[in-house]
Amino acid sequence: MRRSIVNDPDQLVPQALEGLVLSHPQLLELEAEHRYVRRREPAQDKVGLVSGGGSGHEPLHAGMVGRGMLDVAVAGAVFTSPTALQVLEATRAADSGRGVVQIVKNYTGDVLNFRIADEITGDDDIETEIVLVDDDLATDSPDGGPGRRGTAATLIVEKLCGAAAEQGAELSEVAEIGRRAAASARTMSLALSAGTPPADGRPQFELEDHEVELGVGIHGERAARRGEFTDADGLTDQLLDPLLEQLGLEQGQELLVVVNGLGSATQLELGLVARAAHHRLRGEGLSVGRWLVGSYVTSLDMHGVSITLMPLDPQTRQLWDAPVRTPALTW
Amino acid sequence: MRRSIVNDPDQLVPQALEGLVLSHPQLLELEAEHRYVRRREPAQDKVGLVSGGGSGHEPLHAGMVGRGMLDVAVAGAVFTSPTALQVLEATRAADSGRGVVQIVKNYTGDVLNFRIADEITGDDDIETEIVLVDDDLATDSPDGGPGRRGTAATLIVEKLCGAAAEQGAELSEVAEIGRRAAASARTMSLALSAGTPPADGRPQFELEDHEVELGVGIHGERAARRGEFTDADGLTDQLLDPLLEQLGLEQGQELLVVVNGLGSATQLELGLVARAAHHRLRGEGLSVGRWLVGSYVTSLDMHGVSITLMPLDPQTRQLWDAPVRTPALTW
Repeated sequence: MRRSIVNDPDQLVPQALEGLVLSHPQLLELEAEHRYVRRREPAQDKVGLVSGGGSGHEPLHAGMVGRGMLDVAVAGAVFTSPTALQVLEATRAADSGRGVVQIVKNYTGDVLNFRIADEITGDDDIETEIVLVDDDLATDSPDGGPGRRGTAATLIVEKLCGAAAEQGAELSEVAEIGRRAAASARTMSLALSAGTPPADGRPQFELEDHEVELGVGIHGERAARRGEFTDADGLTDQLLDPLLEQLGLEQGQELLVVVNGLGSATQLELGLVARAAHHRLRGEGLSVGRWLVGSYVTSLDMHGVSITLMPLDPQTRQLWDAPVRTPALTW
Repeated sequence: MRRSIVNDPDQLVPQALEGLVLSHPQLLELEAEHRYVRRREPAQDKVGLVSGGGSGHEPLHAGMVGRGMLDVAVAGAVFTSPTALQVLEATRAADSGRGVVQIVKNYTGDVLNFRIADEITGDDDIETEIVLVDDDLATDSPDGGPGRRGTAATLIVEKLCGAAAEQGAELSEVAEIGRRAAASARTMSLALSAGTPPADGRPQFELEDHEVELGVGIHGERAARRGEFTDADGLTDQLLDPLLEQLGLEQGQELLVVVNGLGSATQLELGLVARAAHHRLRGEGLSVGRWLVGSYVTSLDMHGVSITLMPLDPQTRQLWDAPVRTPALTW
């Protein structure tokens, strides 16, 4: 049982968004009716960028709104897609005449609602492009099906597309940059304990002392198998082994590495994983050009960590390094 | 029981510091022997700023090293002061000839070790000034004793002193700014559950379902009394009531408010507390000029939150707003 700091659970998301916006009054504005957060000063004459999805993954997505990243983030209830109407209004708010790129994590409800919204924005003469993020290696399957889930690479896609849009790229270019990033980034996640939905108070699953959930999803989806609970170096290897096997990187390849806490991992724990990843990747002859270590794409208070690897080239490195100013990322 | 991502528990702090520094190679450098983190490019010709203490409060202190904040942060083991020798070497590293301000949370071991180090730096001809941070209202007592503990106001003191030093202020001025901030800021903390030392795995205390630890310390120190477990608005009031009574603020007073997660509070939960604090403070006729909402001064994975209030004036507002670039704070 985990108790939560909450008022009426039905008001959790709108009240938390209100708190976020009140504490970033220079950056953000809340549209309460359709539950989206937008920049206080809307960008003009650039490709708009909207993302969104169920809540419980904070700071994704509303914490990524600001110069150099998203124009608008739209929020569903915890682990529930926003409605098509919300997506429609968020997309309209993101448009300044040059079209809107919609960054969508690959989950059935999100994809459906963004597609329905886009049938209507077509009538509005707003051009849209969907960039689907599907980086979760744990759900890679040769058999087709719903495809890989979208997880921590979402923030990379939001960052790169945001920088490209800010630099004046056209709709199709911004979308293409996002699709290439999504296609080349892969993530693996593990949990030592599940998150706890605030309305319920019970963790989504239980594990034995000797196991971890290797390949857990950011909504608490169970993995196909358990991993072994070992030390920090061993846990890091369990994440990196399948990533390195899948990506088949060449010696000397430069990488962006995101070590992401899934909720209640401490910064001490994330530091240990970052350290282990550094030594392992260097041992493999790879070069880590850029790091991001912190809790950015979470699953409520899940105790766990994910690692995302993405090969860098001069263009993606420049877009990653471009200035950004949002509640969650600023440089 | 909470399992941890850890290798050898005795190597937790040095390995986590190594991970932090490896993931911020442009900003930070590790001095492994004496376990301090310093700026990659040491500042020249300014008052040096060093802080430190036991680990387990991340991102405090090493995450606060960088331009506009600390020059050096020195780390003890979890909840254990760094040694006098560590403090001495960290202080030497922070000196560029204009003296060093040492920001020390008010705990017996920290105060003792900084004082011992200063007897030796005196022989080095390094001028030092200690700024003691003692903002924890829960330990306010008219009877003397060890005085109030230092908690989340530490980051405010580090930010304001850091900005003043960067702007060229002299040793005594930087120290005076820190002392005034420490004297005027007060913090109250509550926990829904205790943190878990990684070497042990057992939470530091247990609570009944109807209670919270109101006035908990950042090392898991028990409070004098339990508070009532209520909704987010009610919990926020339990923190703000004693703060407002103690500070006796005038109508219209502008405030800096820090809503600080103590470890595993989610951003949804922090958003609810920030929202409740906003409405309550506005209802009291106060004005929140600046906000900081996030997990900055933690107690391992403690599930809880603190609120710090500090009156702002034009000087402190300017110092708060001044540019900063550290792993944890950047603007």
